[in-house]
Amino acid sequence: MRRRDVLKSTGLGLAGVALARPALAQTQPEIIWRLASAFPKTLDTLFGTAELFARIVGDATDGRFRIQVAPAGEIVPGGPAPLDAVSTKTVEMAHTATYYSWGKDPTFALGTAIPFGLNSRMQNAWMYHGGGIDLFNTFLAKHDVYGLPGGNTGAQMGGWFRKEINSSADLAGLKFRIAGLAGTVLSKVGVVPQQIAASDIYPALEKGTIDATEFVGPYDDQKLGFLKVAPFYYYPAFWEGGAMLHFVINKGAWDGLPGSYKAVVRAAAQAANCDMQARYDTVNPQAIRDLVAGGAQLRPFSQEIMETSFNAAQETYAELSGNADFKTIYDSMIAYRGDAYLWFQVSEYTADTFMMTMQRAGKL
Amino acid sequence: MRRRDVLKSTGLGLAGVALARPALAQTQPEIIWRLASAFPKTLDTLFGTAELFARIVGDATDGRFRIQVAPAGEIVPGGPAPLDAVSTKTVEMAHTATYYSWGKDPTFALGTAIPFGLNSRMQNAWMYHGGGIDLFNTFLAKHDVYGLPGGNTGAQMGGWFRKEINSSADLAGLKFRIAGLAGTVLSKVGVVPQQIAASDIYPALEKGTIDATEFVGPYDDQKLGFLKVAPFYYYPAFWEGGAMLHFVINKGAWDGLPGSYKAVVRAAAQAANCDMQARYDTVNPQAIRDLVAGGAQLRPFSQEIMETSFNAAQETYAELSGNADFKTIYDSMIAYRGDAYLWFQVSEYTADTFMMTMQRAGKL
Repeated sequence: MRRRDVLKSTGLGLAGVALARPALAQTQPEIIWRLASAFPKTLDTLFGTAELFARIVGDATDGRFRIQVAPAGEIVPGGPAPLDAVSTKTVEMAHTATYYSWGKDPTFALGTAIPFGLNSRMQNAWMYHGGGIDLFNTFLAKHDVYGLPGGNTGAQMGGWFRKEINSSADLAGLKFRIAGLAGTVLSKVGVVPQQIAASDIYPALEKGTIDATEFVGPYDDQKLGFLKVAPFYYYPAFWEGGAMLHFVINKGAWDGLPGSYKAVVRAAAQAANCDMQARYDTVNPQAIRDLVAGGAQLRPFSQEIMETSFNAAQETYAELSGNADFKTIYDSMIAYRGDAYLWFQVSEYTADTFMMTMQRAGKL
Repeated sequence: MRRRDVLKSTGLGLAGVALARPALAQTQPEIIWRLASAFPKTLDTLFGTAELFARIVGDATDGRFRIQVAPAGEIVPGGPAPLDAVSTKTVEMAHTATYYSWGKDPTFALGTAIPFGLNSRMQNAWMYHGGGIDLFNTFLAKHDVYGLPGGNTGAQMGGWFRKEINSSADLAGLKFRIAGLAGTVLSKVGVVPQQIAASDIYPALEKGTIDATEFVGPYDDQKLGFLKVAPFYYYPAFWEGGAMLHFVINKGAWDGLPGSYKAVVRAAAQAANCDMQARYDTVNPQAIRDLVAGGAQLRPFSQEIMETSFNAAQETYAELSGNADFKTIYDSMIAYRGDAYLWFQVSEYTADTFMMTMQRAGKL
């Protein structure tokens, strides 16, 4: 029973009494928001992260702040549309990858992942304690949006290829389904980036309309069955070393929230951010086993391909440095990146390397 | 102004009215809890994680649920005392590493870290989505405690040594300040584990009463100045590949919380868990630079030392398998560990390796 109902049921007539709005009603108003997810329900690790967020917010406010989660296509389609809908307040918030809006401004890519950027833990570190959240929001505010980190996939897979790719020469003319900044970088090494909706990838690969596609990682990729038509499964997605999603909220809607609801939203977003990575790290190990058992041929990109692409990425970033927003945020990220990769190669990497040698020796 | 005050200030006399307890008062009672941290304020990344947790809970409930955070020594000392105080309801909750209670039951170690266990991301994955939280709470309930993950340090450093350690032969008779299950494992390879309070380590190292000490990682270690008396800084702490803290709550106190407060506590704990790792990943890179600039000699443990210790750990776990709680939780963790280290060596490790080669080449 809600407060208003309780008072009504007691027969107390408060109408006309010179009562200031009760403190609780001010601080815990009943609010219903719509959240547009950029993902379909079938991608349950992605879509489910918005559901988790909404559940936390609802539970933490005793159902007073309810967030209705809509999958891609229900209110607006996926891609850049959910963020646009937040910007115009068609919906109050969205769960998306900001890099879908890269076409509007490349700065949006920095919230998700850029080629040769940060890994998942580093992206968190830079966002929460390296100034990333504030810097990114200074930019997002220009689009009337407030954003909070909202999940990470970890390092994605490089994708499915019909033929083996041994050197960057094999990338020349390759029709590769890949979008955004990554497509721009790879076009510098000869790739012909293709933009195709997820549902159309399989037939395009089967017919040879495209030569390769990237998607996410083992768990999501498994659902689309690419291994039957493009069995060479390359790694890593050097353009998505730790792809971070965001909860984006219309700035006016955010500013209008009572302080306690802002605190709930921040905590729920950070919890969901942590949870999505944990979920992927639980489901991907089994999925990669299943894919390999099903015939997927695991292949690492060669050092030469990686280095050529790295150089192409540097060239791209130099070209983008005229964009002041991009440059400010990129410089902050890159300043952290160098030191982070120095430190991570000490304890983390050495511990992981040892455990991996034990795994390969069948001792785990 | 609180609801009661508002009503009082309006002059409405509700005394004697047959009013059911208002729904809001039931679901949002004013509660003050005491939280005993196992850490001193000076270890700000550790202590600060409990402060962050308390701030989120307070903000999310408009100050109705207040958690007063006490550093080690204020209510109870550090070590196992905070968890004991929760068990007996001397305090409602604590922020601690459950492995401090290892002497009572080795199963407590599984909540934090065990030698050759999981890295930070894997520990999260296993806890949140691999059944870890439920399994660990089945055990904690026997001690009247409910626990939630509450931060991670990442892979710690192996510690400070007065002399170089080149093979396991050099470990024979080595007086090494190290506690818990790790001490038991290392004693099998000849180490003589020493238990010394943090404040007494420096003089013991200086005088040669002990030969080496482990502590945490660069950021925390830097504060204690060990490099002046034990300059060889070994890595990794294979006994703490990803040490997880916990928020532990007296079970009766937890069960008595309204649902919305439970939701707030869960979200705040998961947010704080994520945040502590992010904070360490931001401060450690600079600290390792400073330590090396100050004279710390970085040394990896040899493969032979790692393998010998790995075998000693397996022997220890076999000995502990008579403990049904330990065996159940350990088996769950280990089942996940093998698959996790298989998957992580595909994309994550390959991407990190490439970026580290670029870092070493001065290209980041």
